[in-house]
Amino acid sequence: MSFAPMLEADVASWSGDTDVIIVGFGGAGACAAIAAVDSGASAMIVEAASASGGSTALSSAEIYLGGGTQIQKAVGYEDSVEAVFGYLMDSNGPQADAEKVRAYAEGGAEHLDWLISLGVPFKPSELKERAMMALTDDCLLYTGSEKAWPYKTRYKPAPRGHNLEVEGDNGGPLLTKILLEQVEERGVPIHYDSRALRLIVDEHGPGQRVVGLVVRQDMEERYFRAQRGVVLCAGGFIMNEDMVREYCPQFLDNKTQIGNPNDTGSGIQMGLSVGARAINMHEGFLSLPFYPPATLTFGIFINGQGQRFINEDAYHGRIGSFLVNQSYPVYLILNVADYGNYETESWLQAPVVATGETLDELVSELNLPPGQLELTVNRFNSDVAEGVDTLFHKDTAWLKTLEAPFVALDCTPGAGAFFPCFTLGGLDTTVDGAVCSVHGGVIAGLYAAGRTACGVPRRGDGYASGSSVGDATFSGRRAGRRIALEGAS
Amino acid sequence: MSFAPMLEADVASWSGDTDVIIVGFGGAGACAAIAAVDSGASAMIVEAASASGGSTALSSAEIYLGGGTQIQKAVGYEDSVEAVFGYLMDSNGPQADAEKVRAYAEGGAEHLDWLISLGVPFKPSELKERAMMALTDDCLLYTGSEKAWPYKTRYKPAPRGHNLEVEGDNGGPLLTKILLEQVEERGVPIHYDSRALRLIVDEHGPGQRVVGLVVRQDMEERYFRAQRGVVLCAGGFIMNEDMVREYCPQFLDNKTQIGNPNDTGSGIQMGLSVGARAINMHEGFLSLPFYPPATLTFGIFINGQGQRFINEDAYHGRIGSFLVNQSYPVYLILNVADYGNYETESWLQAPVVATGETLDELVSELNLPPGQLELTVNRFNSDVAEGVDTLFHKDTAWLKTLEAPFVALDCTPGAGAFFPCFTLGGLDTTVDGAVCSVHGGVIAGLYAAGRTACGVPRRGDGYASGSSVGDATFSGRRAGRRIALEGAS
Repeated sequence: MSFAPMLEADVASWSGDTDVIIVGFGGAGACAAIAAVDSGASAMIVEAASASGGSTALSSAEIYLGGGTQIQKAVGYEDSVEAVFGYLMDSNGPQADAEKVRAYAEGGAEHLDWLISLGVPFKPSELKERAMMALTDDCLLYTGSEKAWPYKTRYKPAPRGHNLEVEGDNGGPLLTKILLEQVEERGVPIHYDSRALRLIVDEHGPGQRVVGLVVRQDMEERYFRAQRGVVLCAGGFIMNEDMVREYCPQFLDNKTQIGNPNDTGSGIQMGLSVGARAINMHEGFLSLPFYPPATLTFGIFINGQGQRFINEDAYHGRIGSFLVNQSYPVYLILNVADYGNYETESWLQAPVVATGETLDELVSELNLPPGQLELTVNRFNSDVAEGVDTLFHKDTAWLKTLEAPFVALDCTPGAGAFFPCFTLGGLDTTVDGAVCSVHGGVIAGLYAAGRTACGVPRRGDGYASGSSVGDATFSGRRAGRRIALEGAS
Repeated sequence: MSFAPMLEADVASWSGDTDVIIVGFGGAGACAAIAAVDSGASAMIVEAASASGGSTALSSAEIYLGGGTQIQKAVGYEDSVEAVFGYLMDSNGPQADAEKVRAYAEGGAEHLDWLISLGVPFKPSELKERAMMALTDDCLLYTGSEKAWPYKTRYKPAPRGHNLEVEGDNGGPLLTKILLEQVEERGVPIHYDSRALRLIVDEHGPGQRVVGLVVRQDMEERYFRAQRGVVLCAGGFIMNEDMVREYCPQFLDNKTQIGNPNDTGSGIQMGLSVGARAINMHEGFLSLPFYPPATLTFGIFINGQGQRFINEDAYHGRIGSFLVNQSYPVYLILNVADYGNYETESWLQAPVVATGETLDELVSELNLPPGQLELTVNRFNSDVAEGVDTLFHKDTAWLKTLEAPFVALDCTPGAGAFFPCFTLGGLDTTVDGAVCSVHGGVIAGLYAAGRTACGVPRRGDGYASGSSVGDATFSGRRAGRRIALEGAS
C-alpha cells in the first residue's frame, strides 16, 4: 500500500476546508484538537474507527507526570522538575531527547492542571501496593522503577502515575469520554469510519508544503484542505506485521502485540512519504507483567545459567526487556507461600514447571546447570539474612528468605508467559510537534504527536506506565497549540 | 547540509554522460564498477578522497565466504551452503534478511573464484591460532563464533575468513591495489577529490527516476548524467556524529568510531532524500578486541555482580556487544601466567586494576559484591576440573584452572579499554542492490551496496570479521551487474 502524497493540482473538488486536520482521535488527537481550537484555529478530526479513543481508550490511562503536581502535593510528596528530568533522561538511555524531556518535566504539573480543568477527575490519594494499575479510584502510584535500583540511588523517587478517579480498570474509557465531550463542545467536526489515505501537498520535492488530506469515506475518496496543516496522531505500528518485521522483528515471535487494530503505522508512513525522518524504530515496550500478586516480587528470576539477572522489584517492563536477552530458560523461583492468588489474580500466564518440598527436588525438575541454583539461592538467602541484596540491590522491603516448599514458573518466551509489546519509534519531531525532514529543518504544514512521533518514552528497559498517555496528551496538546499559529501573520 | 535532489530540468550543462555512476571507490564501488563494465555498461567513479580503497583499504580485508570455497576444499574443510546460511541467519538474529543471506551462502564459493580471477591471491593454508587477523600470509581463519557456543551445537563449524596471501596486516591495501588495477584496466574514468553532493532526478515525487549526480570538483559544481542510474557505495555513517546521535547514540561515549573519514552517511542521506527506506539504523559492530594474546581467552569476564556473562572463546565483537549491556564494572580475571605479552601484543588497552598473590588479595582491590568472585571462580574451577563449562559452554580447549597469582584487567567502558565500532544500518535494498522506496517498490535508477546499504551483517553480537568486506564486494558486484541491465531493452 502506497502512501505517496497527492498533488493539490490534481484535486478536482474539495469536500471541506479547515485550518487543522487531525488524523486519529486517540488521546493525542483529542488534545491536539482541543488545543488548536483554544488557540484560535478551526479543526476537524479524521478517525478510521467508529468511535474515539484509539489505544488510549484501551489503556489504563495512568498519566505519568511529576515535578510537583497538585495531587503529589496534596498527598504529601515532594517531587522536583530535576528529579523527573534526571529519571527520564537516565531511564530512556542515550536516545533520550533532552529538549522533549525537559519540556515534559517542566510542564508536568501544569499539564495535570489542564487535564483537571477539562474535567478529568483525580482524587488526592495514593495506592501504596505494588500494582500494574490501580483498580481502585486512588490516584498516585509508582509506575516505573523510581524506587528500584539503580535509579533510587540517583534521583529522589516519587509516584508519578496519576490514575483517574474511577473504580476498576476504567481510566482509558473515562478519559476518552471526557476528551470526546470537550472536543464536541468546541464544535469540532469528527469524521468517524474515515480512513486517512494520503497527504495532499502543494508540490513534490524538498520545498513542498502539506495542504490537505485524502480520506476514504462512504466508499469514496474525498479531499479536505488544511490551511495550517495536518497533525498525524494515528498511533504506532505494532499492528503492522510488515513494518514490525522490517524495523523491530524481535517483537514478533512469542510476543503479544497490544494496541488498537488501527496502530498500523499509517501516520508514520504518510510522514515518510513526504520526506519525514523516522527514528528509534527498533525500540518498544516489552513487558513481563508478573504482578499482581505483588508477592511474586519476593521470588528471584534466574536465567539459563541459574544466575539472577535483575532486581525483581523493578518495573515489569524493565524485567521483560532484560529477560528476553538472557540465555533461556528463565524461571521465577518462589516460596509456595508467596504464590498466593497467582492463578486468579495474575496476568502472567507462565506455567508452573516445577515444585519441590526441598531445593533438590525443585532442581531435579528444572533444566539448569547442576549445582548453580543452589549457589544462587544460598547467596540470595545469606544476603537476605544480612538485609542487603549485594548483587542486584533489590529493596529490603522485598527481601525474604527462599525456603521450601518451592515453586518455579517458566517465564521463557514461548513457554506460555504473556509478553505484551508496542512500538516506541516514530517520526522525529521538534518539541512542538513539527515533523523533521530528511532534508534538514521541518516539513511545512506537518505535525505529529503520540506514538506516530518519537516522544519522551524511548526504551523498553526504561519505560514507565503512563508515559504513553502522558506523552500523547502532552505532545498532542503542544502540536495543536503550535499548528494553530502556522501561517498566521 | 541538505542532500535534497536536483531536478534534471535545472541542469544548465552536463559535464559528462555515462551509463552508471558509482559513488565511492571502496571495495563495494570497485566491484560495482568492474561488474557493470563486464556486463556491458559504461561507468564512472566519483570518490571524495584522493585515492581508492575507502574503509576496505583500512581493514584487514579478511573476506568471509564459505559453503565450500576452493580454499576450504584445498585445506580439507567440508563446509556447506546450509551451514553458512544457518549460521548467518542465527547470528544475525531476527533482522537477518533471508534472501540476502541465501544468495551470500549459495554464492560464496563462486565469489571467491571471481576474486581470484581478478588476481586476488589466497594461499591454500590455515592460521590455526585464535587471532583478530592473520599477520602471516595464511588464508583461512575463524573470524566469528562458529566454534563457540551456542553456534557450534547448531551448525557445523568451518573457518570462513579468507585472508589474502600477504604478510602483516596488509590485506586491505593489497585488495585495494588489485581492484584499482582491474578498474583502470577497464578504462573506467575515476574522479578523485570529487564529492557527490546530490542526486539528479527527472522529477520530484514518487514517480521520480535518478538520472545523474551533482559533484563538487575543482571548487565548482558539475553535473553528470547516468543513463542507467547511480550506485551509492559511499560507506556507512560512523563518522557523522549527528547521525550517530540520532540513530545509534550508544556508539558515542567511550567508543572509538572506526572507518575512513568519509564514512559520513552521505550515501544514505542522498538515498533518504529521494524516498529511500533506511533500516537497522540502530545497530553496529562493537568490539572488545582482547586477543591477541590468545591466552587471555583462558581468563573469565565478570560483571558488576561478580558473575560471568559469556563464554570467553566467543568472537571479540560478540563479547564487546554483551559487555556493554552488563552492570559495571567489568573485569577480565586472569592467571598472571596467561597475561603473557599483553603489553606488547594487545590492542585492548584495558588497564591492570588489581593483582593478587591470592584470590583474597585480588578481591580486596576490586569493586565487587563481597564473596561473589570467590563463588564464581570456585564454580569455574570445579567446572574446569570436570572438563565442562556448565554455565557458558566455553570450549574445553580454553578451560584452564584459575590460580594465583592473578591479574585483573578493567574492561569497563570509560576505564581505558578500546571499543571500536561502526554502523550496520543503511538503505534497504533488494538482493540485487536496487534501493527500496518508502512508497513501496524500488527507486528507479538507484542502487546501493556495501555499508550504504543494509546487507548481510546486521548485529554487533553476531558479527564476524570479513563479513563487511565480503558483503561489500559481493553486494557491489551484484549491484553493478544488475544496473548494467537497467533501461536495456
